Amino acid sequence: MFKKRRSTPGSSPATLVPHLVDGKAIKAKIQVVEYDLTHFIEKEFTEVSEVIAMLDIDKVTWINVDGLGDLAVLESLAAHFKLHPLALEDVLNTGQRPKSEVADDYLFIIAQMVYHDQKLELCGEQVSMFVGKNFLITMQEEPDYDVFEHVRERLRSGRGTIRKSKADYLAYALLDSIIDHYYPVLEKIGSDIDELESRLLLNPSRDMVQKLHEYKRGLTQLRRYVWPMRDVVNSLLHDNTVYVAETTKIYLRDCYDHTVQLMDLVESYREVSAGLMELYHSSVGLRTNEVMRVLTVITSVFIPLTFLVGVYGMNFAPHTDDGKPLPLNMPELYEPYGYVILLGVMAVIAIIQLYVFRRMKWL
Amino acid sequence: MFKKRRSTPGSSPATLVPHLVDGKAIKAKIQVVEYDLTHFIEKEFTEVSEVIAMLDIDKVTWINVDGLGDLAVLESLAAHFKLHPLALEDVLNTGQRPKSEVADDYLFIIAQMVYHDQKLELCGEQVSMFVGKNFLITMQEEPDYDVFEHVRERLRSGRGTIRKSKADYLAYALLDSIIDHYYPVLEKIGSDIDELESRLLLNPSRDMVQKLHEYKRGLTQLRRYVWPMRDVVNSLLHDNTVYVAETTKIYLRDCYDHTVQLMDLVESYREVSAGLMELYHSSVGLRTNEVMRVLTVITSVFIPLTFLVGVYGMNFAPHTDDGKPLPLNMPELYEPYGYVILLGVMAVIAIIQLYVFRRMKWL
Amino acid sequence: MFKKRRSTPGSSPATLVPHLVDGKAIKAKIQVVEYDLTHFIEKEFTEVSEVIAMLDIDKVTWINVDGLGDLAVLESLAAHFKLHPLALEDVLNTGQRPKSEVADDYLFIIAQMVYHDQKLELCGEQVSMFVGKNFLITMQEEPDYDVFEHVRERLRSGRGTIRKSKADYLAYALLDSIIDHYYPVLEKIGSDIDELESRLLLNPSRDMVQKLHEYKRGLTQLRRYVWPMRDVVNSLLHDNTVYVAETTKIYLRDCYDHTVQLMDLVESYREVSAGLMELYHSSVGLRTNEVMRVLTVITSVFIPLTFLVGVYGMNFAPHTDDGKPLPLNMPELYEPYGYVILLGVMAVIAIIQLYVFRRMKWL
Amino acid sequence: MFKKRRSTPGSSPATLVPHLVDGKAIKAKIQVVEYDLTHFIEKEFTEVSEVIAMLDIDKVTWINVDGLGDLAVLESLAAHFKLHPLALEDVLNTGQRPKSEVADDYLFIIAQMVYHDQKLELCGEQVSMFVGKNFLITMQEEPDYDVFEHVRERLRSGRGTIRKSKADYLAYALLDSIIDHYYPVLEKIGSDIDELESRLLLNPSRDMVQKLHEYKRGLTQLRRYVWPMRDVVNSLLHDNTVYVAETTKIYLRDCYDHTVQLMDLVESYREVSAGLMELYHSSVGLRTNEVMRVLTVITSVFIPLTFLVGVYGMNFAPHTDDGKPLPLNMPELYEPYGYVILLGVMAVIAIIQLYVFRRMKWL
Amino acid sequence: MFKKRRSTPGSSPATLVPHLVDGKAIKAKIQVVEYDLTHFIEKEFTEVSEVIAMLDIDKVTWINVDGLGDLAVLESLAAHFKLHPLALEDVLNTGQRPKSEVADDYLFIIAQMVYHDQKLELCGEQVSMFVGKNFLITMQEEPDYDVFEHVRERLRSGRGTIRKSKADYLAYALLDSIIDHYYPVLEKIGSDIDELESRLLLNPSRDMVQKLHEYKRGLTQLRRYVWPMRDVVNSLLHDNTVYVAETTKIYLRDCYDHTVQLMDLVESYREVSAGLMELYHSSVGLRTNEVMRVLTVITSVFIPLTFLVGVYGMNFAPHTDDGKPLPLNMPELYEPYGYVILLGVMAVIAIIQLYVFRRMKWL
Repeated sequence: MFKKRRSTPGSSPATLVPHLVDGKAIKAKIQVVEYDLTHFIEKEFTEVSEVIAMLDIDKVTWINVDGLGDLAVLESLAAHFKLHPLALEDVLNTGQRPKSEVADDYLFIIAQMVYHDQKLELCGEQVSMFVGKNFLITMQEEPDYDVFEHVRERLRSGRGTIRKSKADYLAYALLDSIIDHYYPVLEKIGSDIDELESRLLLNPSRDMVQKLHEYKRGLTQLRRYVWPMRDVVNSLLHDNTVYVAETTKIYLRDCYDHTVQLMDLVESYREVSAGLMELYHSSVGLRTNEVMRVLTVITSVFIPLTFLVGVYGMNFAPHTDDGKPLPLNMPELYEPYGYVILLGVMAVIAIIQLYVFRRMKWL
Repeated sequence: MFKKRRSTPGSSPATLVPHLVDGKAIKAKIQVVEYDLTHFIEKEFTEVSEVIAMLDIDKVTWINVDGLGDLAVLESLAAHFKLHPLALEDVLNTGQRPKSEVADDYLFIIAQMVYHDQKLELCGEQVSMFVGKNFLITMQEEPDYDVFEHVRERLRSGRGTIRKSKADYLAYALLDSIIDHYYPVLEKIGSDIDELESRLLLNPSRDMVQKLHEYKRGLTQLRRYVWPMRDVVNSLLHDNTVYVAETTKIYLRDCYDHTVQLMDLVESYREVSAGLMELYHSSVGLRTNEVMRVLTVITSVFIPLTFLVGVYGMNFAPHTDDGKPLPLNMPELYEPYGYVILLGVMAVIAIIQLYVFRRMKWL
Repeated sequence: MFKKRRSTPGSSPATLVPHLVDGKAIKAKIQVVEYDLTHFIEKEFTEVSEVIAMLDIDKVTWINVDGLGDLAVLESLAAHFKLHPLALEDVLNTGQRPKSEVADDYLFIIAQMVYHDQKLELCGEQVSMFVGKNFLITMQEEPDYDVFEHVRERLRSGRGTIRKSKADYLAYALLDSIIDHYYPVLEKIGSDIDELESRLLLNPSRDMVQKLHEYKRGLTQLRRYVWPMRDVVNSLLHDNTVYVAETTKIYLRDCYDHTVQLMDLVESYREVSAGLMELYHSSVGLRTNEVMRVLTVITSVFIPLTFLVGVYGMNFAPHTDDGKPLPLNMPELYEPYGYVILLGVMAVIAIIQLYVFRRMKWL
Repeated sequence: MFKKRRSTPGSSPATLVPHLVDGKAIKAKIQVVEYDLTHFIEKEFTEVSEVIAMLDIDKVTWINVDGLGDLAVLESLAAHFKLHPLALEDVLNTGQRPKSEVADDYLFIIAQMVYHDQKLELCGEQVSMFVGKNFLITMQEEPDYDVFEHVRERLRSGRGTIRKSKADYLAYALLDSIIDHYYPVLEKIGSDIDELESRLLLNPSRDMVQKLHEYKRGLTQLRRYVWPMRDVVNSLLHDNTVYVAETTKIYLRDCYDHTVQLMDLVESYREVSAGLMELYHSSVGLRTNEVMRVLTVITSVFIPLTFLVGVYGMNFAPHTDDGKPLPLNMPELYEPYGYVILLGVMAVIAIIQLYVFRRMKWL
Repeated sequence: MFKKRRSTPGSSPATLVPHLVDGKAIKAKIQVVEYDLTHFIEKEFTEVSEVIAMLDIDKVTWINVDGLGDLAVLESLAAHFKLHPLALEDVLNTGQRPKSEVADDYLFIIAQMVYHDQKLELCGEQVSMFVGKNFLITMQEEPDYDVFEHVRERLRSGRGTIRKSKADYLAYALLDSIIDHYYPVLEKIGSDIDELESRLLLNPSRDMVQKLHEYKRGLTQLRRYVWPMRDVVNSLLHDNTVYVAETTKIYLRDCYDHTVQLMDLVESYREVSAGLMELYHSSVGLRTNEVMRVLTVITSVFIPLTFLVGVYGMNFAPHTDDGKPLPLNMPELYEPYGYVILLGVMAVIAIIQLYVFRRMKWL
């Protein structure tokens, strides 16, 4: 989960290696959206040269690259927009910690999307953003999943302030969308934990601990993304760069509140799951204790009785074969009512024991 | 408990969705109180236009909106008082983390009330405040519960400094009332924990752990509210805005002390409940140990004896059917006093065992 | 222990409610000490007017109010010395967190004394101080206990620098005395914990855990007082008010060192008691393990043997009543030396088992 | 693992003691690389004087000393490059915490390489660097292992920016290589932990806990290196010395990101291994519980039955030898179908017990 | 261990009470060393007046007082060197937290030496230093142990920079020696913990937990000294007083590094010992589990068999005394091969059970 890709140790800085998904290099798909208040163009390309040809300096251009398997695409983009090779390396070595960096010609942001896949496993995908004055380049690992559809919809429809604003607002809108999509993931984990809690109290079993352990790992991972996401938004708010307009900062503050609330959620789910683990331990401990008590009571009541009946099952001979009496060899066996008396004695022993156990609160 | 409402991920910022309670949109009830040192008006409306008609710039107007199901009401208020849509969104998405924000025309505060409902379950309700120069707008989720009755009483009676002061003092009075009402909630949890403690020491049972777990969850939740409440009051104290007068700050400092004491209480109850969990574990562990010891002593004493009587219950024949003696086949059975001797031997074995166990401090 | 008194939620700020001890309002006893280098007067009053009549602006006046049951006394004092009603409210709502506040006419300090009462239970009592230029007002909950006798003695005897100094030094002397009296309390807890430790290692029992739990609660409480006490002394050192002279600060630094050492002590006792709890757990766990081992060894050795003797206690008939032989029905019973051979076999089984257990390090 | 060497306590500061590896002083091997954009010389010496003879002030000289057993070498270098004796002492007392210090003539950096040796044990080796304007001196404990081969390769081939840059870039390249080599080490531990996790869930055994404990120790050790490594890189970034050019800082920021990610990795592996330990505990607790339950059920079912058959194995005589009847002495034995009835009774008892256990969820 | 001495609570500040060791006041032994680059005098006195007589303002004088039982000595020194009474009180109330204070005429430093005594118990001894321009006064609790012999040796021999430097360098040399002597103490604890670790894995026993607990307490105590020692050195480095020369600061920085490394060591030993405690717990838990398993398997296999043989040991009569057959009363006993069949049945039962246990991984 959330694996970090890295260059070979010792390799030259900014060594670019094509990004592989399950061993395959994914061909880049380039979606370009160009808009201002009145115009809106949405196209898809595979060649960077075509993209560059259509750039219009008066409009905002959003270039979304899906698939990082083709170095040529990235390098042509880098050449045209003067993207730093170290930044490109971070784009390719996915699984990075979210961060933001101010460069000469753009703002570089790394964010992480999370989602549950079909098998309900927690997945992450890195989104890298280059925010310029009038362009925004986003790069994603693969084309299958992203969380930007709503934003595209808003762009197309011209609703809200998005078409009136610059690239920084678009970047905010994407970041906000990424952050918003943490909520359903966290809520899924939260409701799973709640469900586990109610089952745990009824009947603790081993697979639950395992599940709980998985949730805790998931939360640990999410935490590793959410904390730096907060720092990213915070630095966007407080670094005074030309790339973030004051009007956008009001929205970023809202976005910042969301990251704080996410952290709050993550931390409280972590606490709850730690509490559950403890609850589980107590539950199991108490059960063991109860089982022990039952065992002890039953064993303790019957063992002396079994000993007694064993005594009277012994074969001491009352007299030798030839009739010479062997004195005191189990005369009880030859007493009238001996059996009944013994049964009575045993009943008394059992009752005394039960009384003692009751007083010790074992029953 | 304390659920966070949120917009659909990816939706436009400041998308307003009516707030539902148990699936129903609650119609807004608007209580307006207008006062200065000599005048006092208290009215109830359902239309915002009526409210706006009666506004008097020389008096302090407190507009309390109960029920957030009707967007029209909120939007008209927002239009007149220039409330930012993002703030309104926070008002509607209840369960927010307490916070305060300075806007151009007002101070925006989110606070959380907590109380135990009839079923003694911990509940929370969000109160949003817009503090202007001469107005205060408060918005609550539902009309059934609030903690402002005492403040209204003070306004009506003209007691204290409240009628002499501006909207900031009123906001302080409401905040203080909200914070004061955390005390009974915490004290209830505290006394529940104390009661649990005394019962736990007598006889630990599974439902107690579950209760303790619930209290811990409740404390975790309260903590999530109390900490940012402190930050809110602190920022009101230290942000130099025109909306908080210096004279009010003396009172806010008092309020700040209360939040610090609340945190103190929450933290020490958390510690106590963690200690109780530990106590519980030790208790159970020790009980298991005691039970084990009894079981072991009884079993260990009787098992060898039972073996012995088993030996003398064997049917080895002293001679064949036709009288040929089978040497050494259980001659003890044919000894005079054999039975008594065996009983004596068994008594000696038992006594030795008891002595050993006593020395090992198991008895 | 250390209960916090509070006003009714929602009540007006600075609502004064007489302070009750066990439900009774304690009449104030006012001790006044007035001194300079050459003069010394010590008197006791019940009326504030008499106190005010004797005030001498050239001397230092220490007014010590014992018992907070009479609002009139406090209010007259407040009126004369311009004490803020919010401060008075803190005086009455005892159990406050220690704090210091700078007001226009005085420095307001809340401190907490702790002591073990006759039943060796940990108690706290709040001392509130108003430090003016030439006066010091202290207010205590009840007259039975305070820690100021040594200071009074020094004042009477004229020893040390105390008679040469102003009210700030007197305030320091009282604070120092309060802080010094934490040491015996902590040392008592420390030696109790040490004693518990040595007993715990010999024979863990349930009442010890309970005791340990109590000590931990006590330490948690002390911690809640010691940390803010440190902050109080620190702020006295670093806030540049006219009420604390530079010459006094040298002494306050000494006092500060003491609070740091107290914190050190509290923290290390907390660590030790946490360590003891752990030790206790291991002890119990290990004991359970030992008990189990004994049980297992004894049971495992005897159960197969008991089975064997049970086998030869069966009544399979060697021949029918009419003498028809039933082949292979327990021929061992009719073997010569069968009994001895069986005893031998059982001895071998037992020895093998003991050897195995020894190798598994269970014996 | 990662032992810290130290001088004899009380010895003079900067007392130089030859560094021994397994008790042997290793003779220094001096590799010198001198380069600028167009020239490149790589030589190996054993005498410092030869090194000094070849120094060229217009080129960057990298002097790599492998083996610290010969004080003379170090002292001649120190004399020529004005290295401070305290720095030399740190070079010799390996196992230092990574740190950086600015001196008059150079920047002094201590870093730690880590690797798994052939036995897969975690090892550390100290690298000390003196970064001057046009020279870089690195000192390593032994010649067998270093992580600089890739950098040498880049120097030889003239690839990248390394040949165009000064000594600071070379130092960066070496630091980066050191930091990069933490990744494989951490990933090895990470995959070991993952493997352990899957085995743990199947069948917990004692050697796993031991392994887990070892990993945790390893992570604790790595943490002790990674945290200060981050500080080192950070101080290089922010201390404004003449020894680090602005152009190099872009690369150092990349390097800093790596240290932050390393810390992230270390911390999350630590959390995972703590979670595993907990998982292990729960697993074992639950198993004990299950085992107990089986034992209890079997014992509880059979013990009463065994008692019953014991009862009917008693030898109470129905009549005396001479035929006088002994009334009520086990008449059941002489009832028709007595045996079958008893078997039935026992079956009923067993069934009731099983039903009870089922209801208690023990089966 | 490391007891804190304190004045009676409430006593005047700077109340001097002779320091007792085991109830006895130790007579002060005054060693004086006076030196500059060319001169060196070393003498021993018992009277302070003699010391003062020999003071030479152009040389550095080190006055080392061993034994604090004689107030007259301390007071005469204080009078001559203008030492503050509060400082003297700290000298006498040993067990102080390490600290440094700048006074008008000197720098006051409290440090703590630690060592293992003959019984290998951890001991501490306080060293108080007054660093003036040309004098250094050190005060120790008792003459038996100090760590300054190496420094005296360096003074005598004139080696190193010590004779060329002022009192501040001497103070540094002593502090450095004190700090250096923490290493052997910590290494002893470290190797004890390592040894314990290897034994723990083989066979956990109760005395080990106790030992571990002791080590943890020792580490807690050391930590209480090491942390403030670091602060002391740090404040010497950064407070700009006339008493510490810039040239000395280079050495102090080295000293500071050592305190940081000590903290590092203490913290990692603490972590290791916490890990060991956990390992111990798991070990014991696992052992209990194994023991349980063996017990359960043996018991479960034999209990049904024992029941069966009990059945056939019952004495149901096949016919009445007078030969009337009692039908179905244990006909098995009168079957040919009945015994063998029963043995077979029992073998089958045992085999099935063993198979089941094997499948449940209990064998």
